[in-house]
Amino acid sequence: MSITRRTFLYQAALLSAATAVTQQASAMTKEQTFIHHVYFWLNNPESKEDKAALIAGLKKLSVVKTIASFHIGEPAPTNRDVIDRSYSVSWCLFFKGSDDQASYQVDPIHLNFVKECSHLWKKVVVYDSIDI
Amino acid sequence: MSITRRTFLYQAALLSAATAVTQQASAMTKEQTFIHHVYFWLNNPESKEDKAALIAGLKKLSVVKTIASFHIGEPAPTNRDVIDRSYSVSWCLFFKGSDDQASYQVDPIHLNFVKECSHLWKKVVVYDSIDI
Repeated sequence: MSITRRTFLYQAALLSAATAVTQQASAMTKEQTFIHHVYFWLNNPESKEDKAALIAGLKKLSVVKTIASFHIGEPAPTNRDVIDRSYSVSWCLFFKGSDDQASYQVDPIHLNFVKECSHLWKKVVVYDSIDI
Repeated sequence: MSITRRTFLYQAALLSAATAVTQQASAMTKEQTFIHHVYFWLNNPESKEDKAALIAGLKKLSVVKTIASFHIGEPAPTNRDVIDRSYSVSWCLFFKGSDDQASYQVDPIHLNFVKECSHLWKKVVVYDSIDI
């Protein structure tokens, strides 16, 4: 094999590897952000202890590895007709795609959270959305 | 004034400035993330044109300077009893504190969005939450 031919093949291999990396990166950026936003209504909304117990449970839950980022919140002071501020705790999770959210649902840490904390709430509303 | 005295005053001024910067940074980190999550139900949920018009309006709206980050989404394919997937478009905004959200509400770009797009929806539900 001539040096020129070897150089060509080497360059072609490099180009191919570079293309593969670029395609992989492109596929990664194409993953749609998945927002899993949960609102909790407590059985005893006046109980500071129950609210604290739920927040503590969510903090334990937040270590699930597929969670990209999370926010534990409570209703802001804003108050207009269109605003629902009747819930007690907001649990906003970001995932890098649907698969990570599906994995979170069956994660033992999540199952344990439901087991330990579900007695605290009377109602949960979930909005799952994916980036357009 | 002696050199020693001048040096002392200079160092005191530096220390004071450094303390002010540190306090400012501390106050900034204490600002609670404000999540303003809006769900839109369209008048004509089957109309691709109306959904596209709302999304285009939200993209125009997203340039408001006080918005820290935003996500335009649609219901994910997930479907369980607790999941509300009856809305058409999700508009999730992050602000660095309540003041930025209040500013957004009266921003001319926001007022113009409402003027141009409010005919598209029949119902809006807003959840405002601040980090605990």
